[in-house]
Amino acid sequence: MTGIDRLLFEKYKDRIISAETASKLINNNDVVGTSGFTKAGDSKSVLPAFAKRASLENIAITLITGASLGHTTDADLASNGALFKRMPFQADATLRRHINNNDVLYIDQHLSETAELLQNGHLPKLNIAIIEASGVDENGNIIPSTSIGNSATFAALADKIIIEINTSFPIELKGIHDVFIQEEYPNKQIIPITAVDTRIGSEYITINPAKVVGIVFTEAQDSPADIAAADEKTTAIANHLLRFFEKEVASGRLSNSLLPLQAGIGKVANAVLSGFINSKFENLSMYSEVLQDSTFDLIDSGKMTFASASSITVSKDCYSKIMNNFSFYKNKMILRPQNISNAAEVIRRLGIIAINTAIEFDIYGNVNSTHISGTKMMNGIGGSGDFARNAYLSVFVSQSASKENNAISHVLPMVSHVDHTEHDVDILVTEQGLADLRGLAPVERARIIIKNCVHPDYKEQLEDYCNRAQALGGHTPHILSEALSWHTRFTENKSMKHEYQLEKMI
Amino acid sequence: MTGIDRLLFEKYKDRIISAETASKLINNNDVVGTSGFTKAGDSKSVLPAFAKRASLENIAITLITGASLGHTTDADLASNGALFKRMPFQADATLRRHINNNDVLYIDQHLSETAELLQNGHLPKLNIAIIEASGVDENGNIIPSTSIGNSATFAALADKIIIEINTSFPIELKGIHDVFIQEEYPNKQIIPITAVDTRIGSEYITINPAKVVGIVFTEAQDSPADIAAADEKTTAIANHLLRFFEKEVASGRLSNSLLPLQAGIGKVANAVLSGFINSKFENLSMYSEVLQDSTFDLIDSGKMTFASASSITVSKDCYSKIMNNFSFYKNKMILRPQNISNAAEVIRRLGIIAINTAIEFDIYGNVNSTHISGTKMMNGIGGSGDFARNAYLSVFVSQSASKENNAISHVLPMVSHVDHTEHDVDILVTEQGLADLRGLAPVERARIIIKNCVHPDYKEQLEDYCNRAQALGGHTPHILSEALSWHTRFTENKSMKHEYQLEKMI
Repeated sequence: MTGIDRLLFEKYKDRIISAETASKLINNNDVVGTSGFTKAGDSKSVLPAFAKRASLENIAITLITGASLGHTTDADLASNGALFKRMPFQADATLRRHINNNDVLYIDQHLSETAELLQNGHLPKLNIAIIEASGVDENGNIIPSTSIGNSATFAALADKIIIEINTSFPIELKGIHDVFIQEEYPNKQIIPITAVDTRIGSEYITINPAKVVGIVFTEAQDSPADIAAADEKTTAIANHLLRFFEKEVASGRLSNSLLPLQAGIGKVANAVLSGFINSKFENLSMYSEVLQDSTFDLIDSGKMTFASASSITVSKDCYSKIMNNFSFYKNKMILRPQNISNAAEVIRRLGIIAINTAIEFDIYGNVNSTHISGTKMMNGIGGSGDFARNAYLSVFVSQSASKENNAISHVLPMVSHVDHTEHDVDILVTEQGLADLRGLAPVERARIIIKNCVHPDYKEQLEDYCNRAQALGGHTPHILSEALSWHTRFTENKSMKHEYQLEKMI
Repeated sequence: MTGIDRLLFEKYKDRIISAETASKLINNNDVVGTSGFTKAGDSKSVLPAFAKRASLENIAITLITGASLGHTTDADLASNGALFKRMPFQADATLRRHINNNDVLYIDQHLSETAELLQNGHLPKLNIAIIEASGVDENGNIIPSTSIGNSATFAALADKIIIEINTSFPIELKGIHDVFIQEEYPNKQIIPITAVDTRIGSEYITINPAKVVGIVFTEAQDSPADIAAADEKTTAIANHLLRFFEKEVASGRLSNSLLPLQAGIGKVANAVLSGFINSKFENLSMYSEVLQDSTFDLIDSGKMTFASASSITVSKDCYSKIMNNFSFYKNKMILRPQNISNAAEVIRRLGIIAINTAIEFDIYGNVNSTHISGTKMMNGIGGSGDFARNAYLSVFVSQSASKENNAISHVLPMVSHVDHTEHDVDILVTEQGLADLRGLAPVERARIIIKNCVHPDYKEQLEDYCNRAQALGGHTPHILSEALSWHTRFTENKSMKHEYQLEKMI
């Protein structure tokens, strides 16, 4: 059998089953924990087989993952009615539709917290864990693949474990993982990471072999990341941010190596990170959730010395590059469980510079990362809250306006949903400019956000709101009857612009 | 001179000055850091003298404290135009009025973060620190009084230091303080607290004697805490919470000693803590911001073994009790800097049960702790965010309705300001009942909050909103044009009740 050389624990050999058989070990109403973090290291045979089974049977589960899954797994599960509840993150258009119809109940959690909540018994007991492995060692322990996510916690807490050995990964992956499980309360101890490259755990996920009910082999590859090329807006945002970092260095607040970087996934993050390649910064490091194409570009350029995260999610080309030169990259990266990559304690201690994407933000610095018009879930908060709250600097980026005729302003009187409060946001950036909110009271923040970040089409309109609100007084001046009117105007007139409403009235 | 025996460092003896003279060492536009945390250990002679000076001169400062000040200091400073900017917390009616008129710029900060922001250079450089002391040791170091707050950071970062030796405190206070200063980035190390009583620092604030520009003596006492007696509502809230904890113990999730408690200041917190006295819980501990009357009642009753905080803020009677029996209490308590008492790392590690007060909360679990009708500042977020975000359990309590005819509902479609997001709130309690939000999706949360927490006068109205919003769909169903209408209805009709609006329309 292909891959049998990756199964070094003899006792498991009589537990080898097909994905279809494995999928039948999942019962209706089960709580299932599976590997997978931003597409990397997800279950590529058992979960899809379960989705198929659900197309024929009336069966549904609570599915807890690391973060988003790859391929069409989340879509197939949702379409076939296989999901009762889903957490802590997703990024699939089909699943999203089901979530917004409330036929899949979704819990949008800080990515650091799921493992903790399970360990504390604040979520239902896990019946079964499905963990992708690049191999199994001679003691029956799991060597993960391209992510760790919540897998170690799932394996520790579930009654049963299915291991999916994936032969598409090189066995050289062994050694890049650092698996650390915290004790339960009241005996929780320090997470002793004091640098991005501190090793505190083991290279494998320790499991109780008696719980393993199935070994499945697969050779399906990770879904590649979709890398969107930088455009005018993302380049402008990146440049504003790079100029800001240069000023911080000039002021003596930061060294030329800055502090460890965290970057959310996507176009802007990639543009910012890529911007460092031709910068004067050096010896950069990363303590983030995901290692992206730009991470490896920075390593290649000699600008980045080390990167820590919970997964490797890269394009097909980048993946080949890494795997073909693995010995070069191996000592420059580490993968950790997501409750360690996103641990409040470590983020505060290392002093992370956190760069995340906002859907919209308001004149007082509140950020919405999750909901369209305050109601429809986009993806989820992911780790942005973990990082923003405890970061050395909490940066949020967004385009200032979007759609034809700039019909949507992403800078608003009041956000329609708050994921990051004014207390936790330091720097806001759009392609228009950057607002440094440090040390500013709400009315001062409003002034600088309007001056630097809003799209020119909305400047007057936002100033008008701001002036009329301030005339009424209050520490955080608002006209509550109007505060969310930009959103309702868009629903009614397909534009947030005041002039459209006026024209309509005439 | 009274108290000269408390000044053990010879070199300071020629720096003894009057409060009035000391107040002249503060310059216009200075950034001033002073001791004082929830009334305890504040500057009782120099700051008041400065307020007096400001009544005659056109002079204003940025004032950074631990938290709220005692007596009428904040009021006098604000009334005399002495405050340009104020942070990170206040609780004074006069200052509040000036903040809401925006003639004092106020920054409402997480109490854990101010010291960090100063150390990082994210706030302006401190010109002068004014620190109350119960004494000065033979090396010139400060023995604090009833709070530590941000004093150690202020003393480390300010150019000049004024020490206010207060003889109203017993010298026996020496030994209850544990002063720990974290290294600056990139060398920040672990905060090695692994139990509520772990000692990690020194009994005094180490300072550079060359920076001391004045020693002032005073004998003014701390302002006593206002203790409001438990009433029907607070007792009901306390009972709901105690029954909940009993169930958690019965389920095996918690032991009979629970986990360390944190409680905000006020009536409800006192009622809850007092409720433990006649409970079956035992060996309770506290890791909080403030030691209140109820803390000492719990210690007296033998129910609480140890309490850690940043200040002692108690009634006059309780203060006498403590000081007259100090040897009994001394080994049962510790005072820490507020960035340690409120450190994310320690809160998560110890697994704090955090109980804080909400001004209002919404059907999806978002909490407003600071703003009346989304605009007017009440006091500030204080440490509630520090604790809620990283707690083992994050509990928020509020009365369900208030004012004549229950004109205000504190349970709403949408809060008018978000301090704690749905991601960070586990348990909501009103006198009507308790909603356990753990593991629930937004629509499930709405159901249980309406069922258990809302006042009967508003149940139908809130159900109606909820049903109509859910009919429109979305993960977090809202009708944005109506979401804040309860607040605007109150402004217009002096009641949030829909019937008032209907009656008016007839």
